[in-house]
Amino acid sequence: MLNFVNDYSTGAHEKILNALIESNLKETVGYGEDEYCAEAREIIRRKFACPNAAVYFIPGGTQTNLIAISHSLKQYEAVIACNTGHISVHETGAIEATGHKVIEVKGKNYKITPEEIEFEYNKHCDHHMVKPKMVYISNATEMGNTYTKKELEAISEVCKKYDLYLYLDGARMASAIASEKGDISYEDYAKYCDLFYIGGTKCGLLFGEALVIVNDKIKKEMEYTVKQKGALFAKGRLLGIQFLELFKEDLYDQIGRYSNAMAKKISSTLVKVGFNLLIDGGTNQVFVKMNDEQIGKLEKFVNFSTFPPENMNDKEKIVRFVTSWSTKEEDVDKFIKIVEEIF
Amino acid sequence: MLNFVNDYSTGAHEKILNALIESNLKETVGYGEDEYCAEAREIIRRKFACPNAAVYFIPGGTQTNLIAISHSLKQYEAVIACNTGHISVHETGAIEATGHKVIEVKGKNYKITPEEIEFEYNKHCDHHMVKPKMVYISNATEMGNTYTKKELEAISEVCKKYDLYLYLDGARMASAIASEKGDISYEDYAKYCDLFYIGGTKCGLLFGEALVIVNDKIKKEMEYTVKQKGALFAKGRLLGIQFLELFKEDLYDQIGRYSNAMAKKISSTLVKVGFNLLIDGGTNQVFVKMNDEQIGKLEKFVNFSTFPPENMNDKEKIVRFVTSWSTKEEDVDKFIKIVEEIF
Amino acid sequence: MLNFVNDYSTGAHEKILNALIESNLKETVGYGEDEYCAEAREIIRRKFACPNAAVYFIPGGTQTNLIAISHSLKQYEAVIACNTGHISVHETGAIEATGHKVIEVKGKNYKITPEEIEFEYNKHCDHHMVKPKMVYISNATEMGNTYTKKELEAISEVCKKYDLYLYLDGARMASAIASEKGDISYEDYAKYCDLFYIGGTKCGLLFGEALVIVNDKIKKEMEYTVKQKGALFAKGRLLGIQFLELFKEDLYDQIGRYSNAMAKKISSTLVKVGFNLLIDGGTNQVFVKMNDEQIGKLEKFVNFSTFPPENMNDKEKIVRFVTSWSTKEEDVDKFIKIVEEIF
Amino acid sequence: MLNFVNDYSTGAHEKILNALIESNLKETVGYGEDEYCAEAREIIRRKFACPNAAVYFIPGGTQTNLIAISHSLKQYEAVIACNTGHISVHETGAIEATGHKVIEVKGKNYKITPEEIEFEYNKHCDHHMVKPKMVYISNATEMGNTYTKKELEAISEVCKKYDLYLYLDGARMASAIASEKGDISYEDYAKYCDLFYIGGTKCGLLFGEALVIVNDKIKKEMEYTVKQKGALFAKGRLLGIQFLELFKEDLYDQIGRYSNAMAKKISSTLVKVGFNLLIDGGTNQVFVKMNDEQIGKLEKFVNFSTFPPENMNDKEKIVRFVTSWSTKEEDVDKFIKIVEEIF
Repeated sequence: MLNFVNDYSTGAHEKILNALIESNLKETVGYGEDEYCAEAREIIRRKFACPNAAVYFIPGGTQTNLIAISHSLKQYEAVIACNTGHISVHETGAIEATGHKVIEVKGKNYKITPEEIEFEYNKHCDHHMVKPKMVYISNATEMGNTYTKKELEAISEVCKKYDLYLYLDGARMASAIASEKGDISYEDYAKYCDLFYIGGTKCGLLFGEALVIVNDKIKKEMEYTVKQKGALFAKGRLLGIQFLELFKEDLYDQIGRYSNAMAKKISSTLVKVGFNLLIDGGTNQVFVKMNDEQIGKLEKFVNFSTFPPENMNDKEKIVRFVTSWSTKEEDVDKFIKIVEEIF
Repeated sequence: MLNFVNDYSTGAHEKILNALIESNLKETVGYGEDEYCAEAREIIRRKFACPNAAVYFIPGGTQTNLIAISHSLKQYEAVIACNTGHISVHETGAIEATGHKVIEVKGKNYKITPEEIEFEYNKHCDHHMVKPKMVYISNATEMGNTYTKKELEAISEVCKKYDLYLYLDGARMASAIASEKGDISYEDYAKYCDLFYIGGTKCGLLFGEALVIVNDKIKKEMEYTVKQKGALFAKGRLLGIQFLELFKEDLYDQIGRYSNAMAKKISSTLVKVGFNLLIDGGTNQVFVKMNDEQIGKLEKFVNFSTFPPENMNDKEKIVRFVTSWSTKEEDVDKFIKIVEEIF
Repeated sequence: MLNFVNDYSTGAHEKILNALIESNLKETVGYGEDEYCAEAREIIRRKFACPNAAVYFIPGGTQTNLIAISHSLKQYEAVIACNTGHISVHETGAIEATGHKVIEVKGKNYKITPEEIEFEYNKHCDHHMVKPKMVYISNATEMGNTYTKKELEAISEVCKKYDLYLYLDGARMASAIASEKGDISYEDYAKYCDLFYIGGTKCGLLFGEALVIVNDKIKKEMEYTVKQKGALFAKGRLLGIQFLELFKEDLYDQIGRYSNAMAKKISSTLVKVGFNLLIDGGTNQVFVKMNDEQIGKLEKFVNFSTFPPENMNDKEKIVRFVTSWSTKEEDVDKFIKIVEEIF
Repeated sequence: MLNFVNDYSTGAHEKILNALIESNLKETVGYGEDEYCAEAREIIRRKFACPNAAVYFIPGGTQTNLIAISHSLKQYEAVIACNTGHISVHETGAIEATGHKVIEVKGKNYKITPEEIEFEYNKHCDHHMVKPKMVYISNATEMGNTYTKKELEAISEVCKKYDLYLYLDGARMASAIASEKGDISYEDYAKYCDLFYIGGTKCGLLFGEALVIVNDKIKKEMEYTVKQKGALFAKGRLLGIQFLELFKEDLYDQIGRYSNAMAKKISSTLVKVGFNLLIDGGTNQVFVKMNDEQIGKLEKFVNFSTFPPENMNDKEKIVRFVTSWSTKEEDVDKFIKIVEEIF
């Protein structure tokens, strides 16, 4: 059975695992105050050209989002996000559980537009409504495409105009950076966002995300929120060790490029046999619509995810194929053969 | 200056005020455990034909909504509502502040449809998403129209099918019941809803709403939630005294009919001079779209509310006129004259 | 049956009621933005000598506490309070429900000490613990005694030293001000506290408390919190009208003095027949310990409250007698007779 | 420099690490729905003799506590805990942040007593107060001693009497089970508790705790809470792999015994040179009081933790020494020599 279900179906990239093995018996202080974390923070600050940023290592993505957002907002403030955004749909109301409304907008091609931000900001004009104070975007998006630098710039501009924080969820940042469709550099993330997170779990780590806070206003006392939300790992060093390995050379880029290349082979094949891509995203996630019969045929050979139809009147389900550092090219080639045969 | 800003710009209806004056020096126990409240509860149970319902009197509407919803839901459960619903827009995130997501749907004519409920229920198919457990509707709606009995029945049916609670916000129930466009009776509210509230503030009381809980599952220990959210009035009797007066004869109906009649005169005039009603609702709220010039002309003579445009590309603002028990017919007649002159 | 259960068993003081009657049909804008509220705010600012304070009128006491505290604190910050404090015991976890820990201390004579504040501040020394950021005191206390000016000064000093907000719950401030045992003036409240509330419900209003915010840091955007927590009354004017009446002459003082005088007669009698006062408080609440037999005797003639024993090994219950503006002196005299007869 | 700061200053026990290495490239489904987790759950159910228990693997202890408690309680329900309990002090208000009060009691020898539970239950007698619904205990306690089976039985009994859930925090359960002072067996945990967690982080895992839910009422839809609070690990298998290794043979017992033996050597030496143990606990944590001079002397050679004085009038700080699977006996012997020399 071939497997393109997700980018977290194996353990860690070999280099990451080796880093953990080598450091295993070294004694350090707990809670991320060790030298590995310090060095990893420093490397990240250099890589993203934000020498004064605060960096927190957090076990998982939902946790990172709820920590970043609940720490930044006052109790009546809200975050604007695409209705396909991870916090809008796939976090079981984690943000609302911390007391904050997610104002959902439709987006264009699964990306939020400056006009939408402006419209929502102006619509929420007094204290009978929540006060929009943050914009949440994901890059790569949840649907596998990427923002361009120009788009990010425009969003950042409208955020600055209305004193909104811009927060970027980089669960799949490696894929976005490696994508030919995207042109946002490491430096740009720190330049345009007030805070963002660098995804590790979906890029070869056992687990872990790095939350980078550029805006001074948000930095203060973040360690309290991290602890309160259960994200202050006793063996915090494990996160430092892994991120250090990811960024000390160019492993992050390598993994992004490889995953994208594998996904490209998949998407090209699907297009070739007649499927329409939901969007030609250029990252490690490929989405098409399929009817039950098509799904039935394919799932005899391949594991993949299906989601409910996008709109109320759609008959077809959404189908997703994902690649990662651990995807074997021979499996992709087998997939191509199968698809070409059965469709 | 004429005033059609809202239905809460004066104190209490004369009869209500008298009831408060007469009872003023009588000693009772506190916190709504007095005989006035007991009698008011009994009258409400009879009026709505729900002899076993629990009835709680709560000072305001937002408070009632957040109490009803947070008490009914587990921490990962969510409520489905129209995107024009009061809880979606005009409660400063009160529901989210108790930890629950409001799943917003577009509605049809500002009313939620059974198809939308079904779609959202099925879309939220596993624990990565919130669990829809309640549907919130308002009658009259926030845009001044009403559900029909058939619509309420259909919504109730889909709620039962999926084990969703149906909660109805009756802030302007008096207007809905008195409306020629609506055909939902007192009994129907209790028959089709699991819980609902009877609006008092907008129907002649100084303040107060009556939360009626029909479904046994929701009744239990509600008094704890009422207290925790700050709604257990020391002088709870004030609410009982007022509701008793509202329902012991037919004051509730009278006020509804009168308010609607006044609104009808306003809407007819606006239509006559060429404005399109957002919807021909039949209750005590009238909405039209106006451009800045038109607003400028009218606001020399009349106080009314304006809201941001409905959609991103709309140029015109939304304008609202509201009537109540304290609206003077001579003021309405003056309004008609002015409108006919300036437009 | 005599009634000394509480200070909210009747409606409003005659003058308050008259003010409501007179203003009843006057049209105003909603939500406390009317001229009555404006004038009441101004009078309060003058009375308490805090010309720049923000004043919010809020229907009830628990609501006021949860609004004041949740607005002032970040999500990991906590409030220190006596373990007999209203927020510690009698608000069904209202503060915790907004996400904040109440750090309870033992107090001395039901009053928090500067040493306790200092100890708790120093104990909570890093981000593994909540960050103390506010001290909550009540005056009069829940047990009927009062802070002295010297005590308030000392508490304020330690709060300033550690950058803690000092918040005072004045549900029974009228009784504290009128008490011979207390020497804190109106001006002192504003001088030493960052925010405080003036109790109306227990001092002759139908309902209502006035939250006074002196510290600029806390003022900002408070209107959002007030709305979100369900305390933005549609007919907000009702609160302004009542507070205006309470403070435009000296009704507040009058009521305080009268209530205390009635309580004094009760406490003297209880002492005379051999009961020990829990504390000789000097306000409108009198507490003694009684065994079940004594309670049984007295409750044939008098309504009063009983509470569980104070400590684990106590056999006697706590018994409370409360007076108010509406307590009749003849009832107090009857009480005296009864007590002298049966004990 | 010797290190007795905590039991999480190195990586994983060799066997645990090997299990992770061996399974690293195997593909599984995500989110803990894999075969490793299934097998680990089964082994735990057998070991604790609770064949119908639900078992969830959660990255960290604070997260486990806030998930277990917030899932079990309604919004107005509270948990009773010792004032030295981890949730009372060292989780930055994590429980309150989910909306629930922690009712703190003094305990006896850092252990909660049935009498205290009974007293608090009876004290919270109506809806003006939170409703106690859960008792939280830790075994081993935060101060290094253990409950006896008889004590656990008595607590369980009073919980059953008042329909309170009994939740046990087993962060250091291995040490408790291996302790000569404790006599609670694996089976007893499941027999007497409604839910409990088995600590992994402090017992040789990289990270991870196993939440075991015995009571059917609490099991339902727990997966939603786990996800919402950010604890649903993408690579959930990592937790299954580690717990499988911990329990498939007797690694858990081995580690507990070894840690305790090392701690015993430390405590005996401290007693020998004249320090009084806070309590003679018998687990892997040793607490004594020291003045600043003593601390100054020792910290030239040894890393250990110090805490603020226990009570307001204490002059001495609390000092803690902790051992673990990775403590080297030669280091303990060096410690003994040093202590004997300098004190």
